[in-house]
Amino acid sequence: MAQNKIGKRTFRPGEPVCISHWASVAGKKELEGPLGHQFDRTSTDTKFGEKTWEQAEKRMQQLALQTLLEKSQLKETDLDVVYSGDLLNQCIGSSFTLRNTGIPHIGLYGACSTMAESLLLAAMTAGGGYADHIVAMTSSHFASSERQYRFPLGYGGQRTPTAQWTVTGSGAALIQRRTGKIEITSATLGTVTDLGITDAANMGCAMAPAAFDTIRTHFDDTHTAPEDFDLIVTGDLGSLGKEALIYLFRREGICIGGKLTDCGTLVFDAPKQDVHAGGSGCGCSAIVLCSELLSKLQSGKLKKILFCGTGALLSPTSTQQKLPIPGICHGVCIETRR
Amino acid sequence: MAQNKIGKRTFRPGEPVCISHWASVAGKKELEGPLGHQFDRTSTDTKFGEKTWEQAEKRMQQLALQTLLEKSQLKETDLDVVYSGDLLNQCIGSSFTLRNTGIPHIGLYGACSTMAESLLLAAMTAGGGYADHIVAMTSSHFASSERQYRFPLGYGGQRTPTAQWTVTGSGAALIQRRTGKIEITSATLGTVTDLGITDAANMGCAMAPAAFDTIRTHFDDTHTAPEDFDLIVTGDLGSLGKEALIYLFRREGICIGGKLTDCGTLVFDAPKQDVHAGGSGCGCSAIVLCSELLSKLQSGKLKKILFCGTGALLSPTSTQQKLPIPGICHGVCIETRR
Repeated sequence: MAQNKIGKRTFRPGEPVCISHWASVAGKKELEGPLGHQFDRTSTDTKFGEKTWEQAEKRMQQLALQTLLEKSQLKETDLDVVYSGDLLNQCIGSSFTLRNTGIPHIGLYGACSTMAESLLLAAMTAGGGYADHIVAMTSSHFASSERQYRFPLGYGGQRTPTAQWTVTGSGAALIQRRTGKIEITSATLGTVTDLGITDAANMGCAMAPAAFDTIRTHFDDTHTAPEDFDLIVTGDLGSLGKEALIYLFRREGICIGGKLTDCGTLVFDAPKQDVHAGGSGCGCSAIVLCSELLSKLQSGKLKKILFCGTGALLSPTSTQQKLPIPGICHGVCIETRR
Repeated sequence: MAQNKIGKRTFRPGEPVCISHWASVAGKKELEGPLGHQFDRTSTDTKFGEKTWEQAEKRMQQLALQTLLEKSQLKETDLDVVYSGDLLNQCIGSSFTLRNTGIPHIGLYGACSTMAESLLLAAMTAGGGYADHIVAMTSSHFASSERQYRFPLGYGGQRTPTAQWTVTGSGAALIQRRTGKIEITSATLGTVTDLGITDAANMGCAMAPAAFDTIRTHFDDTHTAPEDFDLIVTGDLGSLGKEALIYLFRREGICIGGKLTDCGTLVFDAPKQDVHAGGSGCGCSAIVLCSELLSKLQSGKLKKILFCGTGALLSPTSTQQKLPIPGICHGVCIETRR
């Protein structure tokens, strides 16, 4: 068996791998939320000075990358590869960010699981001795998502109570071997899982089975249980998806509730900010990780977390064709070196 | 420096990595082309027995995966990860293929560079000891692409002389350590590159600068020249993009023409099949690699090739917003063990 494979779907980096720096960029509503004071850069202009929302998403990624480079005192030419993707059709947020920069790019599509997916690949790459400086990055934008997945904003469509609010934001993390105290110690690959949910306005519940599958597999593969973690953080299940996940674990006799939190419930004050079931989007788990979570790991307030990016792999076409919503969840175990 | 990094953007797998098996699935027009007799499975039904073209793409990937498993005598549960992506919005061809199979999935978006991108990551993963059985896979479909990127087929839009014809097909390759005689010896990561071309009906020329950049970097990083390869194969530049690439090399005093071929020119008989500048799509380089190229490497007719997947990272939205067409090209060096 491959020497760095643990159990069924988990691996550990071939050599110790650290998240050395991180950066977050967020929009107005996120700034007004409970984590607002923690983001590196924010803007109250929904277009971030660009002409379109799609280009605003590019701008947010550019700002996240630039901030990351400033913090790490690296230049663009020092970067060996950027793993990134977003929700826009053909991931144009990510590709236009890196256009003509000369930075090697691996494009990903994992919907809202992209931050975890990119971290997982970055850990594999750094730990395998393939590259020195690796960036994991993603973004999402409320307005470009609404237009692409739902209704034109000007139409004024009503949101159902189970709907979530796509986060406007971008997060980026720098992964290197042995540089820093925050280590990626293992990661569990996700499988495409669904229980047949077809309501595209209830994505939290559609993704919960994938989160359950990955978290349970991580426990099995690494011989751990909820009590071994300070926090198990899902990407963007929102309040309803989180409840569904707790229920799925309870059915198996596992009590996960006390350790579980969700980036979609952390990023907004749901009742006050009228976001219904919470935040969502690639940017949701990205900006929560690249502010609150990594800061708390750095300061020692958290020592070991399981960061579980959750993605709904639907498209407007698959919904129109009455197909269910497949989910995926990649799990990354992040620990503070003792 | 990372021990498996070579030069600026190239790496070699940590341990020897082989392409042990491969499979190809193709449609009617591809069956009628020069390589038609080489594909494992073909269908003259554009929907491959499904209700929609998008689901046909899923079906092609399922058939490619199934054929690969049959050839390698493996079961789905033996697979550690499938790296795959496609051209459909949100990559629904790939995610629905793996839905509820229990097979770990990393979703990619590299447009038509996806076959090379997935091979590159598979080589990294196998060579790093992270997994035992890895599949690299992709697909495209003429009808779903036309509808999504251009016009509804029923509209009967005229194609310009520079246009290419999206291949209907899927290719899959199995990557393992030390099992077989066909080895991935190095790979060069692509950068997002364009020279400002905005004509979405001339994607070959839009992608040529990215191919030039990656191939030249591969030569530099590995201290090789065109004469060190039996063949340098680009993904889907078509006849015009190929000419542009030859021109870009000639400008630097490098004669690449004699070694260069392009999957888009191999898969169809362009004048006879009325495909204008040649084939394109993720499936184009995938089915040419997973038939003609790997067969010739297996039989020893080819000994060393540089397989360069080329992708145009545009979207209909970026075109409508009058943005240029960024290209990317990932290069994978494939050799027959001596």
